[in-house]
Amino acid sequence: MNRMDRLYRRLGGIAYGGDYNPEQWPEEVHAEDVRLMREAGVNLVSLGIFSWAFVQPEPDRMEFGRFDRIMDRLADGGVGVCLATMTASPPPWLSARHPEVLPERADGTRLWPGARQHYCPSSPVYREHAARLVSAVAERYGDHPALAMWHIGNEYGCHVRACYCDVSAGSFREWLRERYGDVEALNDAWSTAFWSQRYASFEEVLPPRTAPTFPNPAQQIDFARFGSDELLACYLTEKRILDRIAPEVPATTNFVPLAKTLDLFEWASHLDVVSYDSYPDPHDEHAAPRAALSYDVMRSLRGGQPYLLMEQAPSAVNWRARNAPKPPGVMRLWSWQAVAHGADAVMFFQWRQSRGGAEKYHSAMVPHGGTDTRAFREVRELGQELASVPELFGARSPRADVAVVLDWQSWWGLEQAARPNADLRLDDLVFAHYLPLYQENVACDIVRPGGDLSGYRLVVVPNLYMAGEEEAANLERYVEGGGTLLMSFFSGIVDPCDRVHLGGYPAPFRRMLGLRVEEFWPLDDGVGVELSRGRGSLWSEEITLEGAEAVASFSGGELTGLPAVTRHRFGLGAAWYLGTLPDPATMRELLRRAGEEAGVRPVLPGLPAGVQARVRQAADGTLRYVLLNHSAEAVTVPLPAPMCDDLAGAGPSDHVRLASRGAALLRPAATPV
Amino acid sequence: MNRMDRLYRRLGGIAYGGDYNPEQWPEEVHAEDVRLMREAGVNLVSLGIFSWAFVQPEPDRMEFGRFDRIMDRLADGGVGVCLATMTASPPPWLSARHPEVLPERADGTRLWPGARQHYCPSSPVYREHAARLVSAVAERYGDHPALAMWHIGNEYGCHVRACYCDVSAGSFREWLRERYGDVEALNDAWSTAFWSQRYASFEEVLPPRTAPTFPNPAQQIDFARFGSDELLACYLTEKRILDRIAPEVPATTNFVPLAKTLDLFEWASHLDVVSYDSYPDPHDEHAAPRAALSYDVMRSLRGGQPYLLMEQAPSAVNWRARNAPKPPGVMRLWSWQAVAHGADAVMFFQWRQSRGGAEKYHSAMVPHGGTDTRAFREVRELGQELASVPELFGARSPRADVAVVLDWQSWWGLEQAARPNADLRLDDLVFAHYLPLYQENVACDIVRPGGDLSGYRLVVVPNLYMAGEEEAANLERYVEGGGTLLMSFFSGIVDPCDRVHLGGYPAPFRRMLGLRVEEFWPLDDGVGVELSRGRGSLWSEEITLEGAEAVASFSGGELTGLPAVTRHRFGLGAAWYLGTLPDPATMRELLRRAGEEAGVRPVLPGLPAGVQARVRQAADGTLRYVLLNHSAEAVTVPLPAPMCDDLAGAGPSDHVRLASRGAALLRPAATPV
Amino acid sequence: MNRMDRLYRRLGGIAYGGDYNPEQWPEEVHAEDVRLMREAGVNLVSLGIFSWAFVQPEPDRMEFGRFDRIMDRLADGGVGVCLATMTASPPPWLSARHPEVLPERADGTRLWPGARQHYCPSSPVYREHAARLVSAVAERYGDHPALAMWHIGNEYGCHVRACYCDVSAGSFREWLRERYGDVEALNDAWSTAFWSQRYASFEEVLPPRTAPTFPNPAQQIDFARFGSDELLACYLTEKRILDRIAPEVPATTNFVPLAKTLDLFEWASHLDVVSYDSYPDPHDEHAAPRAALSYDVMRSLRGGQPYLLMEQAPSAVNWRARNAPKPPGVMRLWSWQAVAHGADAVMFFQWRQSRGGAEKYHSAMVPHGGTDTRAFREVRELGQELASVPELFGARSPRADVAVVLDWQSWWGLEQAARPNADLRLDDLVFAHYLPLYQENVACDIVRPGGDLSGYRLVVVPNLYMAGEEEAANLERYVEGGGTLLMSFFSGIVDPCDRVHLGGYPAPFRRMLGLRVEEFWPLDDGVGVELSRGRGSLWSEEITLEGAEAVASFSGGELTGLPAVTRHRFGLGAAWYLGTLPDPATMRELLRRAGEEAGVRPVLPGLPAGVQARVRQAADGTLRYVLLNHSAEAVTVPLPAPMCDDLAGAGPSDHVRLASRGAALLRPAATPV
Repeated sequence: MNRMDRLYRRLGGIAYGGDYNPEQWPEEVHAEDVRLMREAGVNLVSLGIFSWAFVQPEPDRMEFGRFDRIMDRLADGGVGVCLATMTASPPPWLSARHPEVLPERADGTRLWPGARQHYCPSSPVYREHAARLVSAVAERYGDHPALAMWHIGNEYGCHVRACYCDVSAGSFREWLRERYGDVEALNDAWSTAFWSQRYASFEEVLPPRTAPTFPNPAQQIDFARFGSDELLACYLTEKRILDRIAPEVPATTNFVPLAKTLDLFEWASHLDVVSYDSYPDPHDEHAAPRAALSYDVMRSLRGGQPYLLMEQAPSAVNWRARNAPKPPGVMRLWSWQAVAHGADAVMFFQWRQSRGGAEKYHSAMVPHGGTDTRAFREVRELGQELASVPELFGARSPRADVAVVLDWQSWWGLEQAARPNADLRLDDLVFAHYLPLYQENVACDIVRPGGDLSGYRLVVVPNLYMAGEEEAANLERYVEGGGTLLMSFFSGIVDPCDRVHLGGYPAPFRRMLGLRVEEFWPLDDGVGVELSRGRGSLWSEEITLEGAEAVASFSGGELTGLPAVTRHRFGLGAAWYLGTLPDPATMRELLRRAGEEAGVRPVLPGLPAGVQARVRQAADGTLRYVLLNHSAEAVTVPLPAPMCDDLAGAGPSDHVRLASRGAALLRPAATPV
Repeated sequence: MNRMDRLYRRLGGIAYGGDYNPEQWPEEVHAEDVRLMREAGVNLVSLGIFSWAFVQPEPDRMEFGRFDRIMDRLADGGVGVCLATMTASPPPWLSARHPEVLPERADGTRLWPGARQHYCPSSPVYREHAARLVSAVAERYGDHPALAMWHIGNEYGCHVRACYCDVSAGSFREWLRERYGDVEALNDAWSTAFWSQRYASFEEVLPPRTAPTFPNPAQQIDFARFGSDELLACYLTEKRILDRIAPEVPATTNFVPLAKTLDLFEWASHLDVVSYDSYPDPHDEHAAPRAALSYDVMRSLRGGQPYLLMEQAPSAVNWRARNAPKPPGVMRLWSWQAVAHGADAVMFFQWRQSRGGAEKYHSAMVPHGGTDTRAFREVRELGQELASVPELFGARSPRADVAVVLDWQSWWGLEQAARPNADLRLDDLVFAHYLPLYQENVACDIVRPGGDLSGYRLVVVPNLYMAGEEEAANLERYVEGGGTLLMSFFSGIVDPCDRVHLGGYPAPFRRMLGLRVEEFWPLDDGVGVELSRGRGSLWSEEITLEGAEAVASFSGGELTGLPAVTRHRFGLGAAWYLGTLPDPATMRELLRRAGEEAGVRPVLPGLPAGVQARVRQAADGTLRYVLLNHSAEAVTVPLPAPMCDDLAGAGPSDHVRLASRGAALLRPAATPV
Repeated sequence: MNRMDRLYRRLGGIAYGGDYNPEQWPEEVHAEDVRLMREAGVNLVSLGIFSWAFVQPEPDRMEFGRFDRIMDRLADGGVGVCLATMTASPPPWLSARHPEVLPERADGTRLWPGARQHYCPSSPVYREHAARLVSAVAERYGDHPALAMWHIGNEYGCHVRACYCDVSAGSFREWLRERYGDVEALNDAWSTAFWSQRYASFEEVLPPRTAPTFPNPAQQIDFARFGSDELLACYLTEKRILDRIAPEVPATTNFVPLAKTLDLFEWASHLDVVSYDSYPDPHDEHAAPRAALSYDVMRSLRGGQPYLLMEQAPSAVNWRARNAPKPPGVMRLWSWQAVAHGADAVMFFQWRQSRGGAEKYHSAMVPHGGTDTRAFREVRELGQELASVPELFGARSPRADVAVVLDWQSWWGLEQAARPNADLRLDDLVFAHYLPLYQENVACDIVRPGGDLSGYRLVVVPNLYMAGEEEAANLERYVEGGGTLLMSFFSGIVDPCDRVHLGGYPAPFRRMLGLRVEEFWPLDDGVGVELSRGRGSLWSEEITLEGAEAVASFSGGELTGLPAVTRHRFGLGAAWYLGTLPDPATMRELLRRAGEEAGVRPVLPGLPAGVQARVRQAADGTLRYVLLNHSAEAVTVPLPAPMCDDLAGAGPSDHVRLASRGAALLRPAATPV
C-alpha cells in the first residue's frame, strides 16, 4: 500500500477541516475545539505551521509537552493531523543570533522579523536549524496515531521569492557552475557580449541586483530558475528527513494562488500530492472561472491526480485593500467547484479566528462571533454534506478534450523588461483563452509545451514566448498528426536563454502556422484596433501568409487589410493563430470554431448560462457530475439522460432544479449508489 | 500669579506677530524690522527656532553677541519674544562628527542633513547637545526683558515620526520593559503566538522594520506610542531645564496640522499652553470647516483653555504641489475664525519672506515685494483691529452642546494594515461627522473616550476602533444616565493591544447599542450602497438587532432589507449607530435628528448658509459672538436680540450686514463695552 | 586642414550607418555585414562602444586580435569607423575587484552591474582604468585607415546622472572649494542661515542625500552643476588622451534626447562636433515637432555648425512601455527632417539586431528577419538617396528669424521642489512656445540667455526662472536696441544661487516688461482660467502694469479683469509677457502677432498644414529647401518661385507634389546642380 492509499484509508472520505493554531489559545479552548470539529465533520487539521517558537522557545530548548497534549486530544477526537514541519516562520531568536539569515531585496533592503518568511532560502544557518527541528518533530510524531500526512514549510515563495544577499550570491554561482560547467558557456547563454558584460570567472557573477537600467534578461530568468530551485532545495531538505524517519507518511506543501514564483511542474514531481490555497475575490466578477483555471492547473500538475484544496476562506480574507465576505451559499458553491475540478480535500484557513496578529480579520470556521453565526452554520452543513458522498474521494477526472499549454520558464521570460509591450501578463493572457472554454463548459487540462498531447482534441497555446527545440517539435508533431492547435502572438520568439530564434518570427512555428511575422505593432494602453470581426487590444503585428489563410483581418490603422487571425492546414491537422488579443466575444467565437472543427464537446450539453458542470469518475468507473449554479437566479437544467441528485436525495429525473448558488451531484440513473 | 497670567499681563491683548528669523538678514534690516513690526501692531515674535548654527557655529564655540543685539532691539521696540530653544535643526557639525544621530527609516534608509529634523529622537548624543544649548539659552535670556515665553523644539514629528536605527531599537526595548515588566507580558500583548513571533527575551525585540509582509500590528501600535513618547521625552528634557532656570516663564511647542503622529492629549498635559500651526488650503472647498475642527481639537486638549494660533500663512504656502494664495479678505476671515474657536494668538510664518532656502516661496508678513503690497496692508490692518478688542484675550469658550470623541491610540490602531477596509482614514471619517455639525453652527468640543462627558447633550463617536474597558464603560454610563450618543461602524472592535473583543462585534458596546454585527461587508472603492434614505460608501455590515430599531436599511446588494442605521433606547438615553458612511446630506439629516432629540442648539439660530458663528465668554462673564461670512456674497444676518458690532463700531441692531468674507464681533446690546 | 575638414573629406557626403557591435556575432557574420553595408550605402559605423570586456577580458590582459580583423575588414570595405573609447560599460571584473566604483543613489541604494553605466563618475579607479584603455585603443588605432573619428564614452548621464557615495562627496567638496574659495562664501550662496544649515568647514558638506523633507535648493542646483561637470571631467580625461595621441582625428560624444542632466552648451564647447541620439515616439502625435526642437538645440550648441544624428531607430525601440514601429515611410521622412534641421549624418542604433540582451527588441538596419524585410529595404533606399546629394554635407543653416532662449542652469533651478507650482517642466513649457512657431514654419535657433541675439527678429524666453545680472542685461539691451521679445511667467525670479531678486517680481525684467508681479496664483491640476481670449493653465498671477499695456486679461476667478498678457514698448523695441500658459491656439495667435510686429517670416510662405520646410545653404552659397509632408495625405505645395526637386529628379516647377510622408529636396531653378 503506498503512501496515498494509506492516507485515503485514514480519511475515508473527502478531507474536511482547516489550519489549526491552538498555540494562540489557552488549553481550555482546545477541548471545545475538538468537540466543535466533530460537530462540523472535521476529519483533518493542518497543525503546527507556525509553531516553531512554541516548541523551540530558545535555541537550546525544545518543549513538546503542550504539543503532545494537542496531538493526543485530536487523536482521541478522531481528527487526523496534517502535521507541519514548523519551519515557515523562524522565531526571533534565530535572526537575533544570526542576522545573516535575513533576506535582502534587489535594492539591498533587508527584510526583518515581525511578519513571516524572513529567511534567506540559501542560508545554511536557516537550513541547519530547520533540519534539526524537522528531525525532532518527525521523530516525536512520526508514528503518532493522529498523524495523517506532513505539511512541509508553508506557501513557499509567497512573500520572499528570492534573496539577493551575498550568501545567495554564492549559492547562485554554485547553481550556475552546475548548469553551465564553464564560464564561457554562461557568457554565451547570457549574451554577455552585449553591453560589455562578459564574465572572466564565475566569481564575478552576482544576483540581478538593482542596476542603472534594464538588467540582463537571461540573468534574470536564470535567477528566477535559481529562486524556484533554491526554495525547492529547502523543501527537499525537509522532505528527505521525513522520508527517512517516517517513510509511510505522505507529504505535501501548499501552493499559493497562481503566480510565477515557482515552477510548479518541477515542484509537483517532488510532492506525494499537490495541495493548493485558493482565494478567489468575492468582488471579482470572474472569481469562479479564475478559480476553475487554477484548479485545473493543480489537478494537471501530477497528471490528473486529485489535489487537496488545502486553504480557502470561509468568508472574507484580510489582505486585500477591501475584503468582501462570501455571500450566503457561496462558500458551499465554491467548495463544490473545487471538488468538481478534482479536489479530494476542502480545507480552510483557519479553524478558529485569531484574536490578535496580522490575520485576525481573516474569516475562520469558528469566527470571533462564535458558533451562532452564519459562517459556522455553513461550515457544519458542508461538513455533513461532504461526508455523505465518500465515493467522490479519490475519483479521477477524465481526460479533458482541451489542453491549455502553460510553462513557467516561458512566463519568466515573457514578463522581463524591455519587451515590445511591457504590459503583457501571462496569467491574464492565459485566462483570456480559458474563459470562453469555461463559459462553454468545456473541460481543460493544463500541459507543459513538451508534455503528452495525445488524446486532446484541441491544444490552446497562449503566448508561449519561450520555446526550445523539443517543445516546438512536440507541438508541431501534434498538429502534423491530426491535432487542432490555437496559438497566440509572441510565441516561439526565444530559446530558453532568451535569445531570439532567427529566421523570421516565430521561427520554430512558421512551418506549422504557415506564416511569417515581419514586425510587432504593440497597441498603446487603452487603444484597440478594429478587426474584420470584433476588436483587438494589447498587440497587433504584420503577418505575411506563407500557406495559412486569413480568418480575420485588421480593419483600421496601418495594418488595414492584413491578416489578424489565421488558420493553416498542416499535415493531418490545423493550426490557428491570433496576431492580436481579440475581445472576449470574438475570442469565444474563434475558440468555438476551432473547437467545433476539432470535435470538442462540453461536459454536459445545453446548460444555461452561469451553470457549470464537471465530471469525476469513481474508483468503480461510474461517473459523477457536479452541477454548479453560479448565477443569482434559480434555474432548471435539462439533462441528456435521467440522473439522480445525491445531494438533494432526489430520484431519477431528466432535469434538475438548482437554487441560486446551488449545487447538485448527479449520478446517471443506471448507476448504483 | 501663574505663568500664563504673567504672559497675559505681558501681552495685554491677543498675541500678534510671527516667526522671526533675523539671522537670514544683515543687521541693517533688523532696525527696519522692528519699525515695521510696530507699524503692524506686532507684540510677539517667535525667535531663534533655527538659530542653533547661528549661536553655536562650532561644537566648542557659542556666540551670542548678535543674538543679544536682536533681543535688545526687540525689547526696546516693545516686541515680546517667544524664544525658541533652537534645537529643531542640528547644525552640520553635529552629524558630521556623530553620524549616528541621523535617523533611519523602516527600510534602513538613513536621513541626511540638508533639510531639518535630521536627528534620531532617541539619540543620547542629540539630547546631550540639545540640553547643553538649552541651558545656555535659558541662562542667558531667562530674565531678558523681551522674553515672554519659550518655544521648545519645533513641530515635533512633522517630518521624522520615528527612527528605526539600532539606538532607537535599544530605547524601544527599554520602553517596552517599562511597559510590560517581563517578556511574557509582551508576548501576550503582541499576540506573538501568531506566526511564531514569540520573543525569548526583550533583547530580541526590534522596531517594526520592513518585513516580508504585514508586520505585527500590536508591535506597530506600540511603536507609534513609543514614537510619541520618545519625542515627548525630547521635549521634556528641554522643558525641565527651562522650568529650573526660568520658573516663571510659560513654555509651549507648536503642533502641526491634525495628524496621527503624536498623542496630543498626552502631550498637552505637559505644555503651559497649546499652540498650533494651521495651514488650510485655499484651493480646498472645505478649508474652513477643516480648520474649525482642528481649532476645536486644540482648544479641547487642555480642557477649553484658549490656544495660540502659532503659525498660519499670510497667503500661500510652498510645500503643496500647487500653492494657492489667500484671496483678499481671506487671511483676516480665517484669523477671526481661529479667534472665534478660542485662539488667544494670531501668528504667522513668517515675518519677512526668505530670499533663499526651501521656504522662500512661503508667503510672509513682509513679502519679497516689500511693504507696498496687499499682504503687508492686510497684516497691518488686522493688527490694528485685533489690538482694539483686548477683552477677547483669555476669554473662554462656553462648553459646547456636542462632544466629538477622538483618540490617538485608536487612530493608530485603525490605520494599521490588513483591515477589512484598508482605506479607512480617521481624519476623513471624523471630518465626515463634524462637517454637518459645522454647517448647522453647532459648537463642538473634542473629548477622549474616557473623558468627562457630563453636560454634553450629544456625544458623537466616529469609528472608535480601539476601546479599553474603562473607555467603553464611560460611554455606556453616559447613555445610561440620559445622554444621546451617535457611534459609527468599526467601533469597539479591539482592546489597546489590538486584540479583538470576543463575543460578537462590537462586544463592549452591544448592550448599549442593542445590536450585534455579524460580519463586515466593506464596499469596493468607488462603489456605494443604496440605503432606504440616501447612500452609503466605504463600508456596510450585517447587523442583527437586539433591542435597537432600524432607522434606515440597506436597499441594494446582499444586505437588502437589513438595518444600516439604528437607534436604541438605553437606560435614560439613546444610542444611534451607523453601519455605513452615509453621504453628506444623509449624515447631516441623521445628526440633525439625533441633535433635535438631544436638545442640541446652534450657536445662533437662523444663520444663512456660509455664515459661521462662535462665542467666547470674557473674564467678566459677558459674551462675544464672532460672525464669519465664508461665502463670496454679502449677507444680512438677523439676530435674536439687538447687538453691537465692535469691529464696525456699529450701535445696537437686530441684524448685521456682513460683506463677502466679512467678520463681525457682536456684543449683546445690554453688555457694557 | 582642421579635424572636421578631414572628416568631411573622408566621408564625402552625409554620414550613413549605425552602431556596429560585431562582438555579438561569430566572425562569419562579419563578412556578410560588410557586404550588406556596401549594399546599403553605409559609409560610417560606430564601433566598439561596448567592447571593453571584449578587448580587455581580464584586468591584465588586452586582446586586440579580433578587433584588428574587424577594423581591417571595414577598411577594406570602404566603411569608415567612428571608434569608441569603449568605456561606457565597465566589465564585471572591475567592480568585482573594486566595488567602490559602483554608484549610489541619493537614498544610499548601490547600483550594481548587469546593465551599463554602473560607475561612479568621480571614481579615480574607474577613471584610471578608463584612461589606460583609451590610451591603448588610441595607440593601436590612431592611424588605422578605417578610423574616421572618435566616439568618447556613450550617452553620458543617461542612466546615472550623479553618484552620492562618499567618494563623490569628496569630489563635490573639492568642486565647491574651487567654486567658492572659502566656506563663508558657500554659506552665503546656499542661504544656510535658513534651517540652521551653516557649515563650519567644507569637510561637513555632503551631496544632497535623502533628507527628512525638502533639501536645500542651492545645494541641489550646485550638485546638478557638479554632476554635469564631473561627467564632463570623465569625457575630458579621455579627450585629452586622444588629442595627444591622434591630434588630427575629431572626437564627439552622443547626447541623449533633450534632458536636464548635462549643461549641453558647456559640454558642446569641448566637442569637435555635436552628435545626438534621437528617439521620437511614433505613438506621439507631436513626435515631429518635438524632434525638430531637439535638432534645433543640437545645431545651435556650437553656433549653427551641422550636427550628427548619431542614433535613431529604424523602426521601434525597446525601452518604452509600448514600443510602436515606424510605419512605412516614416523612417525616411524623419531622417530627412534631421537633415533639414542641420544634420550631416543619418545613423542608426544599430546595424544588426541583437539576438540576446536587453535591447534585442530594438529595431535595427538588419532585423531578426534578415534582409528580405521592409526595414532593410527602406534602409537601403535611403542610403542610396542620401548618397545622391553630397552637396548637403556641411551645408549651414541660415540664421533663423527667431531665437528661443534655453538655459540648463535655470532648468535645474525651475524644477527644484517647493515651488509655487511643483509641476512646471521646462521641456514641456519650451515646447509649448516652440510648437506654434513650428506650425507656422518659422525657423528657430536656440540661444543661451547671455548669448548673441543680434540679427534675431524675435526672441522667445520661456519661463527663464533663473537669471544673473549679465543675462538680464543682455535681454534688456536686445529690446532696448529694437528687438521684440516674448517672455513668459516665473522668469527672472532668482539669481544663480536660487536667491530671490528682491524688489518686486521679476526684478531684473520689470523695467523692460513695464510691470510688477505682486503674487503668484498657480492653478490647480486640471483647472484652467478663462482669458479675454482663450484659456490659461498651470499658472496665473497678479500683475500691476507699470507702463505695459494689457493684451489679454483674466476673465474668471479672483483675478478677473487683471492683465494676463501684456506688451511694453521699451527703448526701440517691444517686450511681450505671458502671465499664464495660454492654450495652444491662443499661444499660436500671440506668437503670430508678436512675430508679425517683428517681421518674422516662414521658411516658405503658404505651406499647407502638416508640411514642414527648412533650408540649408551649401558651401557655394546656394540654398536647398527640404520639404516634408508629415500628414497622411498627399498634397500639392505651391512654391514662390520655380524649383527643381532633386530627390524626384524633377525639373523646374512652381509647385511640388508630396506623397503622404513624402519629402522633397528643392533647388531654386536658377541654381546649378
